[in-house]
Amino acid sequence: MQPKYARARQSRRARYDTDTIHAILDSGLVGHVAFVAEDRPMVMPMAYARIGETLYIHGASKTRIALLDQVPVCLGVTDITGIVAARSGFHHSVNYRSVVVHGTARRVTGAELDAALDAITDHLLPGRSTEVRPMTTQERKATGVVAIEIEHASAKVRTGAPVDDPADLDLGMWGGVVPVVTALGASVADGHTPEDTPEPPSFAAARQKFI
Amino acid sequence: MQPKYARARQSRRARYDTDTIHAILDSGLVGHVAFVAEDRPMVMPMAYARIGETLYIHGASKTRIALLDQVPVCLGVTDITGIVAARSGFHHSVNYRSVVVHGTARRVTGAELDAALDAITDHLLPGRSTEVRPMTTQERKATGVVAIEIEHASAKVRTGAPVDDPADLDLGMWGGVVPVVTALGASVADGHTPEDTPEPPSFAAARQKFI
Repeated sequence: MQPKYARARQSRRARYDTDTIHAILDSGLVGHVAFVAEDRPMVMPMAYARIGETLYIHGASKTRIALLDQVPVCLGVTDITGIVAARSGFHHSVNYRSVVVHGTARRVTGAELDAALDAITDHLLPGRSTEVRPMTTQERKATGVVAIEIEHASAKVRTGAPVDDPADLDLGMWGGVVPVVTALGASVADGHTPEDTPEPPSFAAARQKFI
Repeated sequence: MQPKYARARQSRRARYDTDTIHAILDSGLVGHVAFVAEDRPMVMPMAYARIGETLYIHGASKTRIALLDQVPVCLGVTDITGIVAARSGFHHSVNYRSVVVHGTARRVTGAELDAALDAITDHLLPGRSTEVRPMTTQERKATGVVAIEIEHASAKVRTGAPVDDPADLDLGMWGGVVPVVTALGASVADGHTPEDTPEPPSFAAARQKFI
């Protein structure tokens, strides 16, 4: 992938290898999808999934996001992993892993739509699409899927301690990182779940993603 | 605030009251800022802070984001709070709290710049700006701050159990929610922190935000 949008200023944090980009996309909880609407920028949080070099988002058929077709879109995924407490406000930072993808929206139909919907279901709960009942024809009609081919993508990763001015290191101040942890809690069954029904296997697979 | 971008389809999840919108903005870890660059949408993850009805973002002086001025921008903040496992893929969902803000970028100088930088430092670590050494003139020159007056904002909140088709409730399947929890871990001091230096008080204030 071409790092078309790389900025030299922050190149020490930039990553352009496919493995890093895919890993961040695959572990992200939510994508922020930007598009241009009436000459104004619009951003919306969206569930998504990746199959190869294509991202998929979905929405009710008649919603604005599901009608995007042959227009440029930009999708950002960010995982904040720590608060970096430096000795100066200037060097305060956060640790994070993020990806920004540029691509063109394309409306999806047929078998690709089915595969995309399964992938979106499986994104947070791997294998979940095989545990639920099949989709009905009516449900398929009610759902619009948009593909975003990854044309350009770049990742940024910051880890580790603050980078303070050397003179500030003698101030006797606390400096370091407060980790930000995202984890899955104990599942809560609803009132329609028969007693003693075990958690679906996909939950254990999901927990593996958060370790 | 006028819900200019409300969509009737999802009105049951929409919130337009200032308290809800401010609470989600104030607890968010990162904002995704969208703008139009050469007719294409661009989204970037950014630290931010709110003072009244104005959001502030910052960047190195010469970066694209810090040069935004008198152009429309859109900022999204999303907190995923659960994975909603329904009995069908169609009714799968996530629990979340999100805000989308529309406004116009305005470059900031003088006393407003100082207040904005303090607010950004304090956003994740309340009171931190009073714990660090004062900013130098050189650091102020190196930092660009952009204000986004909140012109329109809308929040969406989903909580609770899946909403399944009635017929699916008799399938004997597990249905419910896997909570997604974001928390602060034990802080890690760097090698320049004198032994037995206590955590700054702002960390305790930050932990209060994540309870």
